This record gives sequence, C-alpha cells and structure tokens, in this order.
Amino acid sequence: MEEVMDDEPLASWRAGKIRSSIIDFVANITRPDSPDFVQPTDRIATFDNDGTLWCERPFQAQLYFAHDRLEELAAADPRMRERESFRACLDIDAPAIKRLGKQGILEVIAGAHAGTTQDAFDAYARHWIDSAQNPILGRRFKDLAYRPQLELLDYLRHHDFQVFVVSAGGIDLMRAFSEEVYGIPRSQIIGSYVRTRVELTDGRTELIKLAELGCFNDREAKPQSINTMIGRRPVLAFGNSDGDLAMLRYTLAGDGRRLALLLHHDDTDREFAYDRDFIVSPLAEALDRADEFNISVVSMKDDWTKVFDSPAQGAETS
Amino acid sequence: MEEVMDDEPLASWRAGKIRSSIIDFVANITRPDSPDFVQPTDRIATFDNDGTLWCERPFQAQLYFAHDRLEELAAADPRMRERESFRACLDIDAPAIKRLGKQGILEVIAGAHAGTTQDAFDAYARHWIDSAQNPILGRRFKDLAYRPQLELLDYLRHHDFQVFVVSAGGIDLMRAFSEEVYGIPRSQIIGSYVRTRVELTDGRTELIKLAELGCFNDREAKPQSINTMIGRRPVLAFGNSDGDLAMLRYTLAGDGRRLALLLHHDDTDREFAYDRDFIVSPLAEALDRADEFNISVVSMKDDWTKVFDSPAQGAETS
Repeated sequence: MEEVMDDEPLASWRAGKIRSSIIDFVANITRPDSPDFVQPTDRIATFDNDGTLWCERPFQAQLYFAHDRLEELAAADPRMRERESFRACLDIDAPAIKRLGKQGILEVIAGAHAGTTQDAFDAYARHWIDSAQNPILGRRFKDLAYRPQLELLDYLRHHDFQVFVVSAGGIDLMRAFSEEVYGIPRSQIIGSYVRTRVELTDGRTELIKLAELGCFNDREAKPQSINTMIGRRPVLAFGNSDGDLAMLRYTLAGDGRRLALLLHHDDTDREFAYDRDFIVSPLAEALDRADEFNISVVSMKDDWTKVFDSPAQGAETS
Repeated sequence: MEEVMDDEPLASWRAGKIRSSIIDFVANITRPDSPDFVQPTDRIATFDNDGTLWCERPFQAQLYFAHDRLEELAAADPRMRERESFRACLDIDAPAIKRLGKQGILEVIAGAHAGTTQDAFDAYARHWIDSAQNPILGRRFKDLAYRPQLELLDYLRHHDFQVFVVSAGGIDLMRAFSEEVYGIPRSQIIGSYVRTRVELTDGRTELIKLAELGCFNDREAKPQSINTMIGRRPVLAFGNSDGDLAMLRYTLAGDGRRLALLLHHDDTDREFAYDRDFIVSPLAEALDRADEFNISVVSMKDDWTKVFDSPAQGAETS
C-alpha cells in the first residue's frame, strides 16, 4: 500500500504497478523497523545515462559532439575526411556509425581531442553542451532529461540514497552538465575515459588527453567500474539497453531486497519507440529475459504521465 | 588572524605557522565575501594514506596483510615459499622487500588472493584489519591513525570539504576501515587495484579478483586517478613521500588559492624519524624542493602536540 507522501513525489509517474514497486521498495529498505532495512551508507543507486536519464535518439549527444568538433577540424584540414571513422561522424552516416559502434564513436572523440589539456577539454565540453540541440526534437540536449527520472533522483536522494551515473558515454561530457541537470556531482559520474599524460609546462602540472581509451564502460565493464569507483554493490539500478544488463544482474545478485528497472522506449507520440532496432545501443536480451532475471520493465508510454518538462517539437515526426 | 572557533578545532596541532596557515586557508576560501571564495562543490581535499593518515613503519600494513595471508597459504602448500616475492613477504626480509618495491608488494597480495570473489575478499580484509597489530608499536593498525589528521578531516568536512584518500595502497584494504576510522566513505577511497572478471555462478553475478594490477596508483598516477575518479583538481592535498609529489604539484597548479602539505616524520620519541632512508616509500625530492614548489612541510615533532590517541608502546625502541 502506498503511503501519502508530502508534496507528491514521482508526480510524473502514473499510479500503477511500477510506481508502487518503487515506493514500496524505498519504504521497505529505509524504515528502521523493517527487516529489509539498509543503512544510508549502503543506499547506492546507479543509473545509465543515454536513453535512461535523457534522450538518445536519433543518436547519442556524444555523436553530435564528435561531429561538431570534427567540422571545426575539417574546416582547417580537409584531410580529416579521409579517415573512415571521422567521415562517418561528419556525415552522420547511419550504416557507417553502426560499423563504428559505441566504442568507435568514443575513439573518434578521443582522436579529435588528443593533445588538449583536461582543463581545455572541460571548458570546450561545457560550452558545447550549453547550446547544442537535438536535431529532431528542436531542443537542447540539456533540456531533454526525462522529467520522471529527475523526480526519481530527487526521491532517492530525499531517502538518503547516493546516486551515481554509470554509462558507456564519455565521462567528461557527462560531467559538463551532470551537476546542473541531474544534481549529481562530477565525482559520482562513471563513464568511459581516455588515458592522460602528466605534463609540466613552465612548472605547471597539466593532464594531456591521449587518443587511447583507458576504459570502455559498457556491459561487463559496468559492474567492474562500480566495484572500483564506488566499492559497493548497488541496491537499485536503472538502464535501458543490453549494455546495462550486467549492471542490473549484478545489482539483483546482492543480499536483501534489490530493485532493477529497465526503461522501454515505446512512446512514438512523446519520444520514440525502439528497442532491438537501435543500431548503436540495442535492447533485446534484457527485454526478452526481464521476467526470468526479475527486472521490472518501465513503459515510457504507460508509466510516465509526462516525458519532458515541456513537449518536444517534432517527436511525432520521427 | 585566527578566529576563535567553537570546541577548539585542530586541538592537537601546535599553535604556529602551519596551524595558522591551515586555518587561514580554510577561512579564506570559505568566507562568501572573500576574493578567494571557493564553492562547496569545488572544495576537494586529497590525502595520501600510509604515513600521512596513519603509521607506515616499520612497514605498511599491507605488507603484514600479505604476510599473514601467505602464512595461511604456505601452511597448506609449502611450495609457496619457492616464489621469491612470496618468500620476501613471508620472512619480512627488508632487502628483498626493497627489491620488490610498493608495486611488488601489491602484486604479491594480488597473487595471494587471485580467484576469490570481491565479496569474500572484503570480508577477509575487514576481519584481518579488525585485530591486526603493528609489530613494534604493540597496537592495532586501526588505532594508529594520527589524532591531528583525524581532527583535520573533521575540520575540513565541517567547512563543507569533500575528503578523498588517494593512495598507492590497495583500494580494498583501505575500504575495509576507512568509514570506521576516518569517516570517509568507500566511494571516496582511491588506490591501487587489481582487474576483475565477471562470473555467473548459479545465475548470481560475482566479481572474481585477478592477479593482474589494473592500476598502480603512485606518483604521476595520482593526478590521473584524481581526474578520472573525482573529476576536479583538489584545492588542498596532503602527502608524506615522493610518491605524493605529483599530486601536491597538480593541486598547487590550479587557479586561486591552494594548499599542499607534506608530513615530515621527525619524531623518534612518539613515532619514527625517517625520510630518504625508508626503503619502501622514501621522501627526498619533495622535501628538498618544498620551498621551490610552495609545499608546506609539517613537522610531526614540532607541529603536533599529540600523535596517537593514546601513546604507542615501544615507539622509542625503533
């Protein structure tokens, strides 16, 4: 039974099985007299980013980030187009992007920024994300975080959860907006990253970004990086693709009550409908075996009364 | 000028240049009307562990951890002694330990625990640290955290700093006591670690520890791991050996006011006196060039009125 809560938490979640299961789970592990009580230090929640906390279609924001950076570089040096992976991002060429894959897109970004300092990259990423727009929805990427998920983050923090993002996306681009958009500190963002080199310039220590990936944080890498960077098994995890399945199963394998949620994009009117057909980050096994693994499938269409803070233009034209 | 503080912060720090510089620094960056004001989100402080937060002599606790584990293994299989690195730790053989180095000791621990699950290792480490004693000081390692540093951690947190440990030591052993002893959450411990493998046993996802180091977190690796795991340059850093020099210089190279501190062990009566002669983790360049780099040297003898919560037995016999 749901309790009456102050100022209506999860207001954009439609009353029903999923919303109740979240509220029941949180109540059960946070009530001191509950047999399932979990200490605040152990209340770790991990969320995938692209397609879980914000919109990832037609492609993830980082593809457009790579595209815009490469356009700058290609304007100065047209030979940039000769590299197949760079050309794929410059032309947003779907079949070529499929061949690249998530890791290939990250390697393009790594290649396009190799040699810049970490500080310069951070400033560039913050500047870019501040105005960059989703090409179909006609709104800034920053404004395409899902309203129900922002409410869920608040709800969990209100119950003393520590919330982490655990994404295959590049860690630096996420850190450029995570505090402003999600209220999640930079230190609680876990993602893919490139190696760096320490360089002394006029006695000043700088980190120089290299072209080589140090971590591609997808699939099995997610529980591994959670272990390294958080040091605790989450009690709640939320994803939306097969890239999240290892994290969801790792979460559920802990002792005591756990909750694993999977967002299914089935909402052509307000966002997009896709799963196994998305060429960059498909959802198939996690959806097909959700019941077997005890994963709760969230329907964007049925479980959310609202998707974005204000309706996205053109979503229906996709 | 020092302000009068409630309940006397830094009570075990002797009044003088160092204590004043800490208090002035914190006051300067936390007063909203100060030109040096730093937002709470940017108040990152990083501390080395061994020899900075707790005692590391005659050897770091992790050497005794390796020793005790190897004794168990050698009791079952005497051939363990045939491996030179294992024998060095089993015999606490100083010249052989010097040849091993900090990384070699970590590789021994990695080798001795390869194949165990992360959960089993955590339980083993917590059990070990709960009773393991420093062989000279006659007290548990856990009780050999430095009183003035515990006060400094509290003082910084009171001023909305986020405190991280950034150590070359194994991340898992530190996490086994960091919350209880330092009040620092497991997710704020950065250290060396081994790679893991994800394994499904009866449908349950486990992380299995491998023998291979994924990160040896010493020297230049410290700014690199700070960047990856925190995502911000610290404003304050504290170390005690040349292994910390890159972190201290990285901290000082940020914009605005920064503070880098170096603990000099010069106290034979209450602890130990050593620097360039310590075979595992020497202090030489950082001490010799402290003025040039703007690093503040803290004298254990002069700047601390108290070292441990109660006097260690036998410190004077070292």
